[in-house]
Amino acid sequence: MVPKVDVDGGEEVVGKLCNLTPVIAGLAREEVEELFVPPLNFANVDNGVFRSGFPNAANFSFLQTLKLRSVLCLCPEPYPDASMEFLKLNGIRLFQFGIEGAKEPFVNIPEDTIREALKVVLDATNHPILIHCKRGKHRTGCLVGCLRKLQRWCLTSVFDEYQRFAAAKTRISDQRFIELFDTSSLKHLPLSFSCSKKS
Amino acid sequence: MVPKVDVDGGEEVVGKLCNLTPVIAGLAREEVEELFVPPLNFANVDNGVFRSGFPNAANFSFLQTLKLRSVLCLCPEPYPDASMEFLKLNGIRLFQFGIEGAKEPFVNIPEDTIREALKVVLDATNHPILIHCKRGKHRTGCLVGCLRKLQRWCLTSVFDEYQRFAAAKTRISDQRFIELFDTSSLKHLPLSFSCSKKS
Repeated sequence: MVPKVDVDGGEEVVGKLCNLTPVIAGLAREEVEELFVPPLNFANVDNGVFRSGFPNAANFSFLQTLKLRSVLCLCPEPYPDASMEFLKLNGIRLFQFGIEGAKEPFVNIPEDTIREALKVVLDATNHPILIHCKRGKHRTGCLVGCLRKLQRWCLTSVFDEYQRFAAAKTRISDQRFIELFDTSSLKHLPLSFSCSKKS
Repeated sequence: MVPKVDVDGGEEVVGKLCNLTPVIAGLAREEVEELFVPPLNFANVDNGVFRSGFPNAANFSFLQTLKLRSVLCLCPEPYPDASMEFLKLNGIRLFQFGIEGAKEPFVNIPEDTIREALKVVLDATNHPILIHCKRGKHRTGCLVGCLRKLQRWCLTSVFDEYQRFAAAKTRISDQRFIELFDTSSLKHLPLSFSCSKKS
């Protein structure tokens, strides 16, 4: 039995949730509230667009708060059952553009795949959308980098953002891919983002 | 005189803008379009909230695309004339909560100042808002970290985000400040963010 503790309105919660000793349970009420666990490398990219590493069950309650309409996965492996179940339960559509997770010097990001994925990201009817791969560094970094080019960010800023997520795993080949990526075939698409058009 | 070059519709632009040799000017037209320069360490924090280092004149055309309603500056120095002029011209309100930029072990982030700044950030009538200090690492990192606590992010994720921006300049004292920051007095304020409430 869990002893009653003197926490403002929090006795039942403490008792039910964590079976704590009175000493620990004596913390402020916020300490016993459930905390959200965003996925690895989670961030806002722009209005309605998020990025992260592969979300797992611990991240599901956080993801629900984003009210996602779509998830865009850049990994080629079959989507895990538990994740499929989560998407179904929440009415979230899955787009999968499988790109092999290679290591340098054998990295080969297929330009056509990134271009098709980018079309999905640019389509506001898919928003809010979460882009993810495994760690949210390389494949996701390339896709977001190409999006930034389309938003006409200078390469210095595009690479700075890429490196913020890739950190010690930064790849020259990814940055070369972003630099060489030709955005001309996508320029006719409307951009719904904050920094899409020069005013 | 700049030689005429064979760029689709881009001759005049090339000639006017950059006085390039024909070899360089022969690049695709997109190369001669003006690019945006986001401020140092720029990122989306959440819907209608941005963060960065101190914006300078090179960033003004990018900032215009964000259609900002407010700027929240955490530096104590008088705001530069050129920046004030930019804000005035674009109808942007300045909130200044001056915090000295100290180095460890003499860092002292005033909790009351962060709390008042947080109230401004939480007020959706101030959005879109840009939070900035000098480099967008420490003072901005502390404020955003406290915001994440209010959004009930677990500390691991709060620190991960803090470190992504502070990188090699990560400060234990900032993280301790975030950890100890008491959000209870702010919990009654409505949060307009995507991940504000558990659904």
